[in-house]
Amino acid sequence: MTATLADTDQFVAALRAQSQRYHSLHPFHRRMNEGSLSREQVRGWVANRFHYQANIPRKDAAILSNCPYPEVRRRWIRRIVDHDGTAAGEGGIEAWLSLGEAVGLSRAEVADERHVVPGVRFAVDAYVTFARTRPWVEAVASSLTELFAPDLMAERLAAFERHYPWIDPAGLAYFRARLTQAPRDSEHALEVVTEHCRTPAEQAAAVAALAFKNDVLWSMLDAIEQNYADQARRQP
Amino acid sequence: MTATLADTDQFVAALRAQSQRYHSLHPFHRRMNEGSLSREQVRGWVANRFHYQANIPRKDAAILSNCPYPEVRRRWIRRIVDHDGTAAGEGGIEAWLSLGEAVGLSRAEVADERHVVPGVRFAVDAYVTFARTRPWVEAVASSLTELFAPDLMAERLAAFERHYPWIDPAGLAYFRARLTQAPRDSEHALEVVTEHCRTPAEQAAAVAALAFKNDVLWSMLDAIEQNYADQARRQP
Repeated sequence: MTATLADTDQFVAALRAQSQRYHSLHPFHRRMNEGSLSREQVRGWVANRFHYQANIPRKDAAILSNCPYPEVRRRWIRRIVDHDGTAAGEGGIEAWLSLGEAVGLSRAEVADERHVVPGVRFAVDAYVTFARTRPWVEAVASSLTELFAPDLMAERLAAFERHYPWIDPAGLAYFRARLTQAPRDSEHALEVVTEHCRTPAEQAAAVAALAFKNDVLWSMLDAIEQNYADQARRQP
Repeated sequence: MTATLADTDQFVAALRAQSQRYHSLHPFHRRMNEGSLSREQVRGWVANRFHYQANIPRKDAAILSNCPYPEVRRRWIRRIVDHDGTAAGEGGIEAWLSLGEAVGLSRAEVADERHVVPGVRFAVDAYVTFARTRPWVEAVASSLTELFAPDLMAERLAAFERHYPWIDPAGLAYFRARLTQAPRDSEHALEVVTEHCRTPAEQAAAVAALAFKNDVLWSMLDAIEQNYADQARRQP
């Protein structure tokens, strides 16, 4: 059974509806954008989120490895280059290390992941495992949180510049790069998913994959919020 | 326990000694280079070997996915680009399809792998599985048959042009490209393996990985030879 045009529209609508569960709505993220995080909390978020950034190329390489279509791989590979760069000092992982320095963390303490809490590690590693073990098109679908990312990035950039003037704006280059990368990437991923998910079962699996990815991002913020709680909530 | 310089020399020598088991010595390969294969046998080899070519980027992407070092990934990714190309009609897989046409096979019958025999499929798939499941540095070591490839490619190019004049020389572009790609790639792989395999156990695992890869290539030729036997050996 293949999809009609109307089915495709409904499918895309179901994917887009997952924006209701995007981590931009998480209490910790709301407070970040409202400017009410402490320096320690911002640093905790940056240091923990590094584990995610560092694993994105490995997740994308798993998709490449599982995908039998050179024409898909040829475009997907760009994501790995974006994150790893083509030379030392380039790419998204490096940009995140610069963000770490801009918030007052040393390169070493971000790179060695000493601050990464178990819940963040488990969530990120679950995402990489998903990409390695699930059908490649589901892993592509799981990347579609990028549909929701540009709004979040634009809002985050404005919020950081307004509320956290102690952060060197040069350190926000990662977010600026994602403003153009995420729409390009999500456009390709949406093309791939609508082309390769035609049956109701395939489309349901793609929506479930995107819901899973929302869970990954949400769960990361849960773990970060727990570990970098407000002083008032702390136990001695 | 880390390696001394002398140990590294012995390690590299042990890797290079695997050339004694390289598939250039296989009877089918010797006969190919001597010019004694029939058109059907050459076509069988080209059609079957396509399964290997088509899976190389997936093998290399598995190594990327397992490798935690951006500086290694940044160079390794070049292999995927070499095989997939950056646009339709480019890259090593396309060049192999052109070789197929040059030997008288249609693009379709090569691309859909209808001629690929089970033994070839099993060997190639074992190689991809090895790269996915073994430590990434062992998978890198398994690529070191490229140390032996340039001699084979040069010999093969000369043999094809001399003995099989019915093959359009334009179809041999894949072999010509490998004359420069293989030394560049094996130089990087050897750097990585000597840097990351320091203990005797790690070095032994790397040599075993290269022996495994020789088995993959040899086993492919066994399966091809069995299936495209000389007319005299055929059973009705």
